Amino acid sequence: MKLRELGEDRLIARLVKGLATHRDIVVGPGDDCAVLRLPQRTEYLLFKTDCVVERVHFSPNENPVAVGWKAMMRTLSDFAAMSGCPRYALVTLVTPADRRASWISQLYRGLRRAADRFKVAIVGGETSSTSGPLLVSVAALGTVEKARCVLRSGGKLADILFVTGRLGGSRKARHLKFVPRIEEARWLTENFPIHAMMDLSDGLGADLPRLAKASGLGFEIEESALPRNRGCSVAAAINDGEDYELLFAASPNGARLLEQKWRRKFPRLLLTRIGRLNRKSQIANRKAFHGYVHFQ
Amino acid sequence: MKLRELGEDRLIARLVKGLATHRDIVVGPGDDCAVLRLPQRTEYLLFKTDCVVERVHFSPNENPVAVGWKAMMRTLSDFAAMSGCPRYALVTLVTPADRRASWISQLYRGLRRAADRFKVAIVGGETSSTSGPLLVSVAALGTVEKARCVLRSGGKLADILFVTGRLGGSRKARHLKFVPRIEEARWLTENFPIHAMMDLSDGLGADLPRLAKASGLGFEIEESALPRNRGCSVAAAINDGEDYELLFAASPNGARLLEQKWRRKFPRLLLTRIGRLNRKSQIANRKAFHGYVHFQ
Repeated sequence: MKLRELGEDRLIARLVKGLATHRDIVVGPGDDCAVLRLPQRTEYLLFKTDCVVERVHFSPNENPVAVGWKAMMRTLSDFAAMSGCPRYALVTLVTPADRRASWISQLYRGLRRAADRFKVAIVGGETSSTSGPLLVSVAALGTVEKARCVLRSGGKLADILFVTGRLGGSRKARHLKFVPRIEEARWLTENFPIHAMMDLSDGLGADLPRLAKASGLGFEIEESALPRNRGCSVAAAINDGEDYELLFAASPNGARLLEQKWRRKFPRLLLTRIGRLNRKSQIANRKAFHGYVHFQ
Repeated sequence: MKLRELGEDRLIARLVKGLATHRDIVVGPGDDCAVLRLPQRTEYLLFKTDCVVERVHFSPNENPVAVGWKAMMRTLSDFAAMSGCPRYALVTLVTPADRRASWISQLYRGLRRAADRFKVAIVGGETSSTSGPLLVSVAALGTVEKARCVLRSGGKLADILFVTGRLGGSRKARHLKFVPRIEEARWLTENFPIHAMMDLSDGLGADLPRLAKASGLGFEIEESALPRNRGCSVAAAINDGEDYELLFAASPNGARLLEQKWRRKFPRLLLTRIGRLNRKSQIANRKAFHGYVHFQ
């Protein structure tokens, strides 16, 4: 059945059926706003939105479950970047009217599966038609203990720069099935003073300069040390984007202990020193260090 | 200059320049998430997202300031629907790369003007390119005192149904310049027990059945009593949509006092009794009572 035969109210009724609930949700989908109880006073609220657009972030013949997974995880990855806990999400779906309702149901299966993975409750959303490509936007709300909120701007001179996992080539397949590094980020701030952190969505070449600039510093990296996915060049590891790994800065004191404890805690996930924050960046070939550039 | 020449980072730097700030905003635009202090413990959080799509919610030759205004106000109107106060917004902009940067700046002027009107702080957002029509999605976070949160589901048997303003024909021009009824909703719940409320976005024909159904009741309306915009038929007042007026249900006791006080407080805004909640709806012509139907 096509959406134009199903209609909006029946579509929404299908989509929200059986959504997880929670005692802090006063009102979930179906009213004008979601109504939520406040978190603890020792916490900050985190608020973030992100989207995926057909032909930009996924191809039209992609598995809709994977598209839904990615749409949710892109937003949740920004909570990892601050060592926060995502809690609630709103899903905006903008779709051509001739899309099959079963495609949309599969998309929602992916969205829910991703939300469930981190105990995030989908508390509402919005649907609209469009004459263009399909789009999914996810807005999320979460919390972080005040003392554990890590910004991009907290980097200090001589901090060691670390990345989790491997970089490059993610746009082939990994971008549709990645798991945001929420558990890893939570463990890091529970055990070590992390000065600055972000998730790598546009690639190290775009994102590292943002972190350094926010901290009022430059950076140097050892290109040969970059942890690369199989078959990827250094340039690919720097510029491809969509890796959703963590980039963080921590004091050189304690860096070795951090690495030791990391290996014991996450034996299957690489943690690599890739460089350090300095006074002024010295990048040999600035043009080859750019990351994914939007609108180009 | 076209967006593809300007690039994302410079576009965002332009857009966030001079955004209003507030002592409850720990981190605004530019980091992974917005970081916000908690509101009072006597309040609930309200969380809502809405969007406007070119060729669906506005035409391509529309004034971009008006488009921005509408994009923000559509979301804020849902806070009026619960008598809440919107506080923070995130703006997602999905645009063709060949759109002029000046058009986007004007769009943001409209978004900011609308946000400022209700002291809402834009605390971040997201941009993406698209091969299709331009789209603006606004996610907002707000608060409401627990005792003053009005749901759709609180309607009681024999409640009087009221609407503010006039209905119909709004899609000609009014949909781009409406002011959400936030002040009016706040005044209502400060002074009277309002049982159920919502904003009329899809038209009375779609929205009133939703309110009645949520309250487990039916409804009757006096069609001749409907407050219509100039030149509008009863059918237009019921089905056109995009009026963003309030529909609410209150006890018949006190209804006259409410009307009297309303006239003194809002002498220039009509308040009209249009019917009541009953056990079972009796609509003479069900097919003529439908509102704006999406995907059709």
